Amino acid sequence: MFESAELGHAIDKTTYKEREAALREALLAAQVELKRRGDFPVIIVLAGMPAAGKGEIANLLAEWMDPRHISTLAFDPPNDEEAARPPFWRFWRALPPKGTIGIVFGSWYADPLWHWDSERHQVQIERRIERILRLEKLLTDDGALVLKFWLHLSEDRLKKRLKTLEADPLTAWRVSKEDKHFLKHYEQNAQHAEQLLTRTNQADSSWRVVEGWDANYRALSIGQQVLDAVNHHLARDSIKQRRADAAPLQPSIDGVRLLDTLPLGHAPIKDYKQQLEALQGRLNGLVRDSRFARHAVVAVFEGMDAAGKGGAIRRITGALDARQYRVVPIAAPTDEEKAQPYLWRFWRHVPSCGRLTIFDRSWYGRVLVERIEGFATPAEWLRAYGEINDFEAQLDDAGVIVVKFWLAIDKDEQLARFKAREAIDWKRFKITEEDWRNRDKWDDYIAAGSDMVERTSTTIAPWHLIGANNKQHARIAVLTALCDAIESRLKRKD
Amino acid sequence: MFESAELGHAIDKTTYKEREAALREALLAAQVELKRRGDFPVIIVLAGMPAAGKGEIANLLAEWMDPRHISTLAFDPPNDEEAARPPFWRFWRALPPKGTIGIVFGSWYADPLWHWDSERHQVQIERRIERILRLEKLLTDDGALVLKFWLHLSEDRLKKRLKTLEADPLTAWRVSKEDKHFLKHYEQNAQHAEQLLTRTNQADSSWRVVEGWDANYRALSIGQQVLDAVNHHLARDSIKQRRADAAPLQPSIDGVRLLDTLPLGHAPIKDYKQQLEALQGRLNGLVRDSRFARHAVVAVFEGMDAAGKGGAIRRITGALDARQYRVVPIAAPTDEEKAQPYLWRFWRHVPSCGRLTIFDRSWYGRVLVERIEGFATPAEWLRAYGEINDFEAQLDDAGVIVVKFWLAIDKDEQLARFKAREAIDWKRFKITEEDWRNRDKWDDYIAAGSDMVERTSTTIAPWHLIGANNKQHARIAVLTALCDAIESRLKRKD
Repeated sequence: MFESAELGHAIDKTTYKEREAALREALLAAQVELKRRGDFPVIIVLAGMPAAGKGEIANLLAEWMDPRHISTLAFDPPNDEEAARPPFWRFWRALPPKGTIGIVFGSWYADPLWHWDSERHQVQIERRIERILRLEKLLTDDGALVLKFWLHLSEDRLKKRLKTLEADPLTAWRVSKEDKHFLKHYEQNAQHAEQLLTRTNQADSSWRVVEGWDANYRALSIGQQVLDAVNHHLARDSIKQRRADAAPLQPSIDGVRLLDTLPLGHAPIKDYKQQLEALQGRLNGLVRDSRFARHAVVAVFEGMDAAGKGGAIRRITGALDARQYRVVPIAAPTDEEKAQPYLWRFWRHVPSCGRLTIFDRSWYGRVLVERIEGFATPAEWLRAYGEINDFEAQLDDAGVIVVKFWLAIDKDEQLARFKAREAIDWKRFKITEEDWRNRDKWDDYIAAGSDMVERTSTTIAPWHLIGANNKQHARIAVLTALCDAIESRLKRKD
Repeated sequence: MFESAELGHAIDKTTYKEREAALREALLAAQVELKRRGDFPVIIVLAGMPAAGKGEIANLLAEWMDPRHISTLAFDPPNDEEAARPPFWRFWRALPPKGTIGIVFGSWYADPLWHWDSERHQVQIERRIERILRLEKLLTDDGALVLKFWLHLSEDRLKKRLKTLEADPLTAWRVSKEDKHFLKHYEQNAQHAEQLLTRTNQADSSWRVVEGWDANYRALSIGQQVLDAVNHHLARDSIKQRRADAAPLQPSIDGVRLLDTLPLGHAPIKDYKQQLEALQGRLNGLVRDSRFARHAVVAVFEGMDAAGKGGAIRRITGALDARQYRVVPIAAPTDEEKAQPYLWRFWRHVPSCGRLTIFDRSWYGRVLVERIEGFATPAEWLRAYGEINDFEAQLDDAGVIVVKFWLAIDKDEQLARFKAREAIDWKRFKITEEDWRNRDKWDDYIAAGSDMVERTSTTIAPWHLIGANNKQHARIAVLTALCDAIESRLKRKD
């Protein structure tokens, strides 16, 4: 893997000067086009041996191109806000928007790289590699250009480089204890690096190993590769087209659909008020339990318009301290959100430890309204199932309790509720043209919802399918399921 | 001040039940209209004595209204991200967008409230009060409805309340050491509170003192006040109109304008390359100085199109580590930014300690392009001068070094540069129709720029007016001024 990067590649100064000028001009031109098109981001991951020139390359790329549209993302150890959330939250919030370039240091590769020798961490490392593969797949599937450079130094050259740096009082500070430790266990570290690189090579995001010894060589080599890759990406057909070639789902052959089979009507509950109060008391106790401080809740509400999502949410929040929860209503994405992969706008609302976020509609819009209205291509919403499962698994891994509710009503009940709303002056705004249009697509929503439940109801994040023609029944069922989920998680030992 | 709030107000249960239903319905209706209009936020500040019901009121408001459009902002002690920036940064980033309601606990009033007795803090307290007045003025001038409630308890009632809470094992945890300390020094604390309330009363954001003893009374009282205030605010003429009544600035009587008087042409610099390298080395040394870790840099570039802002910025970034700086190009605001006061989109980019943010165009757009194109009303851009001075003073207070550059070229030079850009294929995108239109308004920009410098060049954040017909001269001058500013700040003892 590193053979070619130990050959002692070098470029003389004259050649460098000649080629640099042309390269720089071409890079600037490509960057202008990237910004103008604005339909994908470029993510450049810089990793490699110590003192192999990662920082220098980042500076040079920013110097060659227009620094206004480049962000350099250096991930230090997580700060408080980051440590209180799933590990990849900080990568998500730093993703460069479409049309710009992000240069990433100490990225998602930083942690696992240096601790392979610890037996204890083996499982985490495996998990991390899977996460990396999925993140990069998601990004490239979304159209991002992901370029990963590994700056390599042979053992001899690393030794020499560290010695030179240490000899000069102006650069001695750059050699850290970790660097020396790395050199001491060079062979083992190189093996681990090779393993990591091999296992995280993917068709659309493969590693490019570059020898880091000669500054001219590594600069021209990486600059040229960035240029070629960006131009190649720009030359493709529109990003959308490229991804639209997946076979759509077929309805079940006997026509039976999961969401048609739910019992919807329930008898009135005589002691509703008492039951509600008892459940709210239980919920309040659970989130004030000291064990809850290491957890968080993400609750998701989906269902037809007027299914009673808002009312159910208010029965939850009524039990909570307002400082502890946040309700996020999902409407059309803002333009900052449109410049990112679709999951970005949900990642940004992931709660920190001890808190609850309740989503009124959610990432499932991708496989419901966006599928039905054609806002997402078949390839996009088909891969969303897996991306969503992974997103929820990451939440679960970090101790976040994911609870998902599908509130089900029938068409008659919806009509009655629409009419009731229209009769009340200030509720009239809640019924829009769109609601009536959605109603015409009832069947499509049942089909898409059934596919959704089938593909995304998992042990860690099951769908609770709740008949909601009777509002009282729905609210009691929602609160019960939520309390049960929190309670069983608090009891779990992990 | 607190006389009426010690009368023992109370509302019986029957009256409460009757009035609550109507109030709730009216609040919901007002909230729907607020969201629909979407042209101002409601900011409800909850402060007061310990155990006077602040948390209960927040929960109740969220329960009465639609929690999806309410955010509850509880400010705990600053976390690392917040502590590395000016104190008000965390308030700015949490401001509720237009059309929504934010309920603020432990707000900008939290710190100064309890430490008035410390002589040592007197100056900070004075400073903080000024900041509060300015923040609230800015928010209300921008159309926000700011409602501040002080929940009061007399000494006897506070004593009784704490005793009751402590007696019940279920509520004993709610009584903190601070609460007891507060009670012990009740009289003094009440005096301090009165002083704070008096000094932070403003026409558009006055305090409303409410007795916190009886839960029914305080709930109805605050609910009704919120309702009336929101409805009153909704009933006004459009927010824009209300603010448009300020006398515009007059040009100077003798027609002499500051920015017309700058020397623009400079002789070529013979040893430009050496000078540039020396300055870049100096800059690099300054930002790696250990003292710089307690500071940060905000550099601002303004000037006519093609004045050489981008080139000057690249000469700065060329001296820096890419991980340490960020260049923020200011284009049209995103829709998330439009839902906030105009300074919000700059506050969000304020660097943390040890870092540099370089703005390519800036908040000065408010008094330049927005003034000239009529995007801001005269009242809006006229008050912007003071708001900007305050913003920069806050940066300076927090150790941020603010350096502002106006790069000046003449009309002939601009024309030559436009034409040169059009001749280069990939630079053609840099010249737009808008650039040509702006050129026609040259005189307006000179006038607005002159007014701007006159009103915003301060000792802590002076404008550097730099003749830029000669690019080399401009770059050397920019780097010199930047280095001087950092150096003198690092030497300053404070």
